[in-house]
Amino acid sequence: MATTQPLVDCLQYANWSEPIFRQMRDGGVHAVHVTIAYHECFREMVLNIENWNANFERYPDLIFAGRSGDDVRRAMREGRTAIFFGFQNPSPIEDDLGLVEICHTLGVRFMQLTYNNQSLLATGCYENEDTGITRFGRQVIAEMNRVGMVVDMSHSAERSTLEAMELSRRPIAITHANPDWWHPAMRNKSDTVLRALAESGGMLGFSMYPHHLQNGSGCTLESYCAMIAGAAERYGVGHIGIGSDLCQDQPDSVVTWMRNGRWTKQLDFGEGSSAAPGFPGQPSWFRNNRDFGNISGGLRKVGFSEEDVAAIMGGNWLRFYDESFGAEGQ
Amino acid sequence: MATTQPLVDCLQYANWSEPIFRQMRDGGVHAVHVTIAYHECFREMVLNIENWNANFERYPDLIFAGRSGDDVRRAMREGRTAIFFGFQNPSPIEDDLGLVEICHTLGVRFMQLTYNNQSLLATGCYENEDTGITRFGRQVIAEMNRVGMVVDMSHSAERSTLEAMELSRRPIAITHANPDWWHPAMRNKSDTVLRALAESGGMLGFSMYPHHLQNGSGCTLESYCAMIAGAAERYGVGHIGIGSDLCQDQPDSVVTWMRNGRWTKQLDFGEGSSAAPGFPGQPSWFRNNRDFGNISGGLRKVGFSEEDVAAIMGGNWLRFYDESFGAEGQ
Repeated sequence: MATTQPLVDCLQYANWSEPIFRQMRDGGVHAVHVTIAYHECFREMVLNIENWNANFERYPDLIFAGRSGDDVRRAMREGRTAIFFGFQNPSPIEDDLGLVEICHTLGVRFMQLTYNNQSLLATGCYENEDTGITRFGRQVIAEMNRVGMVVDMSHSAERSTLEAMELSRRPIAITHANPDWWHPAMRNKSDTVLRALAESGGMLGFSMYPHHLQNGSGCTLESYCAMIAGAAERYGVGHIGIGSDLCQDQPDSVVTWMRNGRWTKQLDFGEGSSAAPGFPGQPSWFRNNRDFGNISGGLRKVGFSEEDVAAIMGGNWLRFYDESFGAEGQ
Repeated sequence: MATTQPLVDCLQYANWSEPIFRQMRDGGVHAVHVTIAYHECFREMVLNIENWNANFERYPDLIFAGRSGDDVRRAMREGRTAIFFGFQNPSPIEDDLGLVEICHTLGVRFMQLTYNNQSLLATGCYENEDTGITRFGRQVIAEMNRVGMVVDMSHSAERSTLEAMELSRRPIAITHANPDWWHPAMRNKSDTVLRALAESGGMLGFSMYPHHLQNGSGCTLESYCAMIAGAAERYGVGHIGIGSDLCQDQPDSVVTWMRNGRWTKQLDFGEGSSAAPGFPGQPSWFRNNRDFGNISGGLRKVGFSEEDVAAIMGGNWLRFYDESFGAEGQ
């Protein structure tokens, strides 16, 4: 596995274990953005970082805490994987603006302004009405810009997403979603959103979570790579990357927690259904971190140059990390 | 004010304000170890860091967050003051070993294993019996050693202090206290402790809190500097520095909080008394951060060389910071 090009996956939420960290190394993955909060309050989120610290201490030859783009380069040099923290919900900052900087200091580099529901900051894609960015949300975006935490709108509704791009002084990300012109789904994004994202210098990470794929778990590699080629044509090859949304080895109780947290007595099935409430099966060509070679191979087959493949598989995210994780103006 | 020599005060707990930060600059102070917890739980301590972050954002020309010895050098170059965080009680780590690394990541560089009372880790100097380092305490010392957080025994009882030095793989500190052969006080330290401290490579910071001074608020500069000369003779000039314990502009309600926290219904007066329950008045020659020149002048008068004065006023602490704040073995 060549290490001259960075390989970055900008979203995973696995049931972390030594075998998974070894698969990251086998697959030559240099950086992974991992989710450390869905519904956690600040203190619960800190416990999740403590668990990561225990992993860093236990497996120093495999993984380490990533903070900057240079840590991706360090991972390439040292043959390890840099782990970057992110939230899929702003619950860990509670109602407290000062916690944005605290979380950044603790290593958090991405925060979704919403998960599926309305948050204190913005509207999630499962709400009926989208009221855009709230008063607190404006303060939080400005603070995230200041300290170097990326606004992630993967699970947010359309108006909130467009407003976040307008309000944010720095490019934002949609770390894990696909275009809805390829597969209509509440979590996939409109052409309007994706055009605005690229024009504002933002990044889209293509998901391989089956509910975001054409034909779900049966999606073909050819279809997925053709979708990426179409997106590159529309939005430019410099604004796209991978955000696999891999939820490896998780019991179904975890997807129930992700969808329901502590907010409902009636079970919410999110993108699933009462007939299929669990995690969907992965497509055969992307089961774990060893399978990224299938994607780069597929991208070559649909006509991408080596340079473009390298940009999509990690180069674009590395540039974005370089520009996004430091304090503003530094 | 020459900036070729570092000026470091290894303990203050002021009612922080712009005038105090300006006094730090007027006095040429390059680094201050500030207390951010007496009885706070983790979340309350984080709020105190948030308040410091607000100060760093508001007064970037005066102060910044210090993390390493190099930040003291940066402060010297840039004409600012580096602020280092410390706890006078281990309450912020609660019962949770993983919080040691979390606090280090947040910038905490010193933690007392106890304030005045028994803690989960060790025994404070106001308890009747000292049972030494607890089982949890041994775990915490090892973890502090690993991540680079200094064990501070300023308020701890004798046996606990000696055991901490034995157990710690890295030198410890007594950031703010004086020898009890100069002024007998529950908070001052025995010759046995101070000899063991120096022999193990540790550091003593001399306090100017009146209850630790011969003749209290009426202590003379000459007596204070003669005490330092005596300590240098006994323990070596390389193991001593300043830890003023300056509690500037604090209302008396704060010393009541420091002594009583949430642990007693009967008012505890600590080193004070019911007749004098408040903060004692500072000695005339050390009222605020502009007065460090009086001490260096006094040290010269009792016969210290320029080199020794520089070591005591900051050089020794800078060396200790260099050796203490990074991960073990790096």
